Amino acid sequence: MPDQSAVKAALAAQKIETPSWAYGNSGTRFKVFAQQGVPRDPQEKLADAAQVHAFTGVAPTVALHIPWDRVDDYSALAKYAQDHGVKLGAINSNTFQDDDYKLGSICHPDAGVRRKALDHLLECVDIMDATGSRDLKLWFADGTNYPGQDDLRGRQDRLAEGLAEVYQRLGDGQRMLLEYKFFEPAFYATDVPDWGTAYAHCLKLGEKAQVVVDTGHHAPGTNIEFIVATLLRENKLGGFDFNSRFYADDDLMVGAADPFQLFRIMYEVVRGGGYTSDIAFMLDQCHNIEAKIPAIIRSVMNVQEATAKALLVDREALAVAQREGDVLEANAVLMDAYNTDVRPLLAEVREEMGLDPDPIAAYRRSGWQQHITAERVGGTQAGWGA
Amino acid sequence: MPDQSAVKAALAAQKIETPSWAYGNSGTRFKVFAQQGVPRDPQEKLADAAQVHAFTGVAPTVALHIPWDRVDDYSALAKYAQDHGVKLGAINSNTFQDDDYKLGSICHPDAGVRRKALDHLLECVDIMDATGSRDLKLWFADGTNYPGQDDLRGRQDRLAEGLAEVYQRLGDGQRMLLEYKFFEPAFYATDVPDWGTAYAHCLKLGEKAQVVVDTGHHAPGTNIEFIVATLLRENKLGGFDFNSRFYADDDLMVGAADPFQLFRIMYEVVRGGGYTSDIAFMLDQCHNIEAKIPAIIRSVMNVQEATAKALLVDREALAVAQREGDVLEANAVLMDAYNTDVRPLLAEVREEMGLDPDPIAAYRRSGWQQHITAERVGGTQAGWGA
Amino acid sequence: MPDQSAVKAALAAQKIETPSWAYGNSGTRFKVFAQQGVPRDPQEKLADAAQVHAFTGVAPTVALHIPWDRVDDYSALAKYAQDHGVKLGAINSNTFQDDDYKLGSICHPDAGVRRKALDHLLECVDIMDATGSRDLKLWFADGTNYPGQDDLRGRQDRLAEGLAEVYQRLGDGQRMLLEYKFFEPAFYATDVPDWGTAYAHCLKLGEKAQVVVDTGHHAPGTNIEFIVATLLRENKLGGFDFNSRFYADDDLMVGAADPFQLFRIMYEVVRGGGYTSDIAFMLDQCHNIEAKIPAIIRSVMNVQEATAKALLVDREALAVAQREGDVLEANAVLMDAYNTDVRPLLAEVREEMGLDPDPIAAYRRSGWQQHITAERVGGTQAGWGA
Amino acid sequence: MPDQSAVKAALAAQKIETPSWAYGNSGTRFKVFAQQGVPRDPQEKLADAAQVHAFTGVAPTVALHIPWDRVDDYSALAKYAQDHGVKLGAINSNTFQDDDYKLGSICHPDAGVRRKALDHLLECVDIMDATGSRDLKLWFADGTNYPGQDDLRGRQDRLAEGLAEVYQRLGDGQRMLLEYKFFEPAFYATDVPDWGTAYAHCLKLGEKAQVVVDTGHHAPGTNIEFIVATLLRENKLGGFDFNSRFYADDDLMVGAADPFQLFRIMYEVVRGGGYTSDIAFMLDQCHNIEAKIPAIIRSVMNVQEATAKALLVDREALAVAQREGDVLEANAVLMDAYNTDVRPLLAEVREEMGLDPDPIAAYRRSGWQQHITAERVGGTQAGWGA
Repeated sequence: MPDQSAVKAALAAQKIETPSWAYGNSGTRFKVFAQQGVPRDPQEKLADAAQVHAFTGVAPTVALHIPWDRVDDYSALAKYAQDHGVKLGAINSNTFQDDDYKLGSICHPDAGVRRKALDHLLECVDIMDATGSRDLKLWFADGTNYPGQDDLRGRQDRLAEGLAEVYQRLGDGQRMLLEYKFFEPAFYATDVPDWGTAYAHCLKLGEKAQVVVDTGHHAPGTNIEFIVATLLRENKLGGFDFNSRFYADDDLMVGAADPFQLFRIMYEVVRGGGYTSDIAFMLDQCHNIEAKIPAIIRSVMNVQEATAKALLVDREALAVAQREGDVLEANAVLMDAYNTDVRPLLAEVREEMGLDPDPIAAYRRSGWQQHITAERVGGTQAGWGA
Repeated sequence: MPDQSAVKAALAAQKIETPSWAYGNSGTRFKVFAQQGVPRDPQEKLADAAQVHAFTGVAPTVALHIPWDRVDDYSALAKYAQDHGVKLGAINSNTFQDDDYKLGSICHPDAGVRRKALDHLLECVDIMDATGSRDLKLWFADGTNYPGQDDLRGRQDRLAEGLAEVYQRLGDGQRMLLEYKFFEPAFYATDVPDWGTAYAHCLKLGEKAQVVVDTGHHAPGTNIEFIVATLLRENKLGGFDFNSRFYADDDLMVGAADPFQLFRIMYEVVRGGGYTSDIAFMLDQCHNIEAKIPAIIRSVMNVQEATAKALLVDREALAVAQREGDVLEANAVLMDAYNTDVRPLLAEVREEMGLDPDPIAAYRRSGWQQHITAERVGGTQAGWGA
Repeated sequence: MPDQSAVKAALAAQKIETPSWAYGNSGTRFKVFAQQGVPRDPQEKLADAAQVHAFTGVAPTVALHIPWDRVDDYSALAKYAQDHGVKLGAINSNTFQDDDYKLGSICHPDAGVRRKALDHLLECVDIMDATGSRDLKLWFADGTNYPGQDDLRGRQDRLAEGLAEVYQRLGDGQRMLLEYKFFEPAFYATDVPDWGTAYAHCLKLGEKAQVVVDTGHHAPGTNIEFIVATLLRENKLGGFDFNSRFYADDDLMVGAADPFQLFRIMYEVVRGGGYTSDIAFMLDQCHNIEAKIPAIIRSVMNVQEATAKALLVDREALAVAQREGDVLEANAVLMDAYNTDVRPLLAEVREEMGLDPDPIAAYRRSGWQQHITAERVGGTQAGWGA
Repeated sequence: MPDQSAVKAALAAQKIETPSWAYGNSGTRFKVFAQQGVPRDPQEKLADAAQVHAFTGVAPTVALHIPWDRVDDYSALAKYAQDHGVKLGAINSNTFQDDDYKLGSICHPDAGVRRKALDHLLECVDIMDATGSRDLKLWFADGTNYPGQDDLRGRQDRLAEGLAEVYQRLGDGQRMLLEYKFFEPAFYATDVPDWGTAYAHCLKLGEKAQVVVDTGHHAPGTNIEFIVATLLRENKLGGFDFNSRFYADDDLMVGAADPFQLFRIMYEVVRGGGYTSDIAFMLDQCHNIEAKIPAIIRSVMNVQEATAKALLVDREALAVAQREGDVLEANAVLMDAYNTDVRPLLAEVREEMGLDPDPIAAYRRSGWQQHITAERVGGTQAGWGA
């Protein structure tokens, strides 16, 4: 059995990055429902993220999205974050909300649009220099809606060329995290649709290029933990965008749709040595109908619970059963950890960290929600289009 | 072999309803790309729809969407349509874009919200009285994003109650078309997720309640033509919302993703006697990146081509092969019709109708696109949120 | 909070039917791997099933499959079961393993084959009379592999006609449970592919006809608990065939692939009043690579655990949160029950029933496996083709 | 527009390999329906394959499956083939039908089983030496049914080790074609589940290792032509196993389920230069209910028709429309080729090759079916388990 104190130490050391955009409004193509108290600028997003960290103790960094979080002075923004107890994390590019990107960005048939997109990506690296961020997270909405619309292979050539230019610009200690997505917003072909495509590009780019796994970006039935295990084995797993899905890229709270899958993913992370490496554990969610800050707190807690269960797997007993080909016993060893109620253990970890054992209740008692509802009146709420 | 002149007569008599909203802007949750010349009011949508009918000859009616197409005087709107050579068609309700509907409309836990939604639906019947529309098309975005969020069964009770009230309001010759959808915008449970649910409700409501099949609203792998055949057998098929999908509810041009499936659907319509009945053939598409009017013309043509192939199936030869259990021959008879190039036949049909045999080319030559691009400057382009 | 003693009483009263065929060999189309000690006749299957009941206390009946379990004297077989502490349960028909059924059974284009299939179904009712079984479970492999192969609608007519004849034959207290399946072994169209089709047929047949939900028989992403809730609301849920799937009809141990889904299903059963009704909880699994008897014990335990969690849901608190539209709190109430480790509670229940708290360990200690491995030498092991 | 005579020449030069096992019996896990006249040994399979080539002119080679086609003297078998007008093609290994392979073959936890599997693979290369086959096609049924059953990553290590040993054994001019499959017969994790995994292994092995795309081995919604384009771009596409699917690995006749997809795949092959390279076009199908030889002839014809349409695409016009971002026109150019009835063109090609323009009719007239039905009486029909 795993050593309890080691498990607790590992849990106390966990770091989960929350995304600035999850604090703003989001929705579906049908409707964006506004919520009270939503941030109106990057600073207010950071202030909310700081609350999540304050109550969970494991969410010390905040991912930015450019241009949604564009400011004049990134050093000042970093200072602002620090003053609130958090740090700036990954920089996320956006090459899908400008009218020029209707048919793509760095895969666009027109060289001028490609140049514009590349300049944006290079600007993101400039921002990384200013914020001290390690990771440039690239997700491309590029793709086509109709067969024949563009040349599938030609788009790969343009993609490779664009990525290479950005890769060259990366400084020491900086990484490129390339995200793949099965579909949406492109509905016929997506230019980076699967881990294989992302992996093939990263392999050619070099060590600083890594694949990021968004748990909502797969075809139905895909075994995500297999991909995690494989990318770890290939030293090409850069990080996660955590969220949940029942159907497509639903962007629900991580652990809400299939907590057993999340556990299996975290088990492969632990087993593959990824828990103590440079892998970035990030959330990427849309809280369309639920209160945003407590939803993010809950999401962080869900990742913690899955992690705790993964750490509790009796790996020696598992290895024995696997070696002996005892299918039922091997499965039982894994399920024993999953079926454990780890909430008391995590409550202990929090108390040892000087936190309230129940982050949701503590947040609710804190009055922050009432505070921001009262304070944040007027202005324009942040959202995907902000 | 089917009689060619009968096939041509059937094709000339086809009626495909185009939706007012397809002429306006649409997009994904990531971005709505605006297009030049997009209508700014219901009249301009009708004017565009009239172009589609002018060049195809088989798109004589236009579906309205309330409140997007709300006007003060529906008789005047009907007159406007008539003056342009088209008629008003089905009335589509909208209970998903008001802030009150965040957790549902007629299935909402709060009675006040349910009342508001019902009042809207009743208003739609009022509008039908004014426009002379036969069909009230109901699609509900109602559902839940998280397990436990609401009571699945209680929502069905509320749904049944609401539908019954609307049904009572229908006049003679009016119908309720209930649409189902697998998911989106709800990501855990949808209150009318499949044909079985729509069918069960319609059955209890009575003869005026019919199921509408949106070809993009099914789980992966669903055999849609089976549903069509079954609903026809049950006298519960009210109509279609045609579009295409590769993944989810992609709302691409009908026939663009799987023309063979469209043919199979149309074959079941013909075989089940649905072609000459009251079944409504409607488009429901989003032309996010392609030019809207020619995309709708193309869509109408795609339905025509699938219909032509379906009508060309040698049903006698098929019945013989089926009866004899000759799998390959039966399949070959069906494929023989599908593999036929029906474009020359449709060109003939158009010429006999006094139309240009090539509607796309004729539209391009007409100058309408240049006309609306020049004329429709200023104002607010119509869109889903308009 | 639910009353613990009531929960324990409910758990002690649970009844899960195990299928005779799960004790025999099974496999994929690629290979059937034989196991040692596998039963060679119906009696040996019953003896194994009696072990499952002896160690779990909640598996008192055994489903038979005709012709796999055909015997000369069913009264003697019932007596044999009783002597071993179990009873005979549902009778399952088989109209898919005779060469005549290549193109279907009661939907076959040839009247002679349909007659043969119907005679078999009527024989099954005769057997029910002899065994005292309540339920006739009908699953049809009927369908087509190629578009055009047969007439989709005509097959529905034949299906309705056949079911009606069998329905008429049912005696008082006997039921027909109609099972649907998304696909396999038919690969284009299946004649009862979804709950809607099964429901429509059962509705016309009458009260004795009920739908059975096999948890592995749905399209990817289908919300099964919604179907359960809907069928319960319609009084048309007859029972379950429990198993697990990651991809298609994988027939893995129930609860092995998505324990959270199983919990949600059981919650809807409890919420809809199905737990104390006549709903049949049956397993239908294939233990292709794992030891069969302990796999079935584990499966029974998995259903118990999901049931315990479902019974532990604080329904009052849930109703409050749902009524208030508190998405996060409502979800949290449900998850609180799911996250509870119910194994200690079930251990208590077992001890109060006079059973070993750990059925798997107790079975392993019992020596039964060694006994049957030694005894059951020679003869032909039972399997799907036996 | 493409030059018609060049298109015809390309079609006349096409080579499609048929698989020996498709001439034998096959079925689902529920039932294998026997057919009359089915071959009883490898020679009779070759004789049937020779008929397919005789009537189509484009099926000159036959893939073998070891041990199903094991003979004492492979040179004699090759001679037998040649005498019948065909040649031996790829050698397919089988490491899934021995009792030892219950938990895997070269990924098995036990070194002894891995050795056995490897020895079989090496034997297959010996057979290649004897038959003069170029390609060793490797498909592994390896995988696990339950989470925890075995170590996902450890299995990859074993896979890599095993593949490397086989790769070393390959002679000059010999290739290893590694096939991936989404699932089945493993139902939780498959050891080579996607093109990315196959690609990553092939990349490390070297130039002789290539990926093979079985069109039925993907997750729902997967864009197969994208994978084809990508693998061609990476010089890692070794060949195809053609077949059709509506749901899982249905192994229906290629082109039967989605002829438009097959066309798109063939278009990417042509566009990527794969048509004139060393890519192997193989069928891998199961004719469970339809007559086998005409089904294979039909399958060959379906590939020809898709190829003809792909060759007819006006690539210059397409490139112009793509460059200009004219979505509708680019799509229309592609669809114009797809909508063409290429059967007359192929009839011409056949006549110029000295063949009957209608291979199915010619086969039926030939009397071969009656001949084999009468001759092949007694003995054991070949099948997957033979």
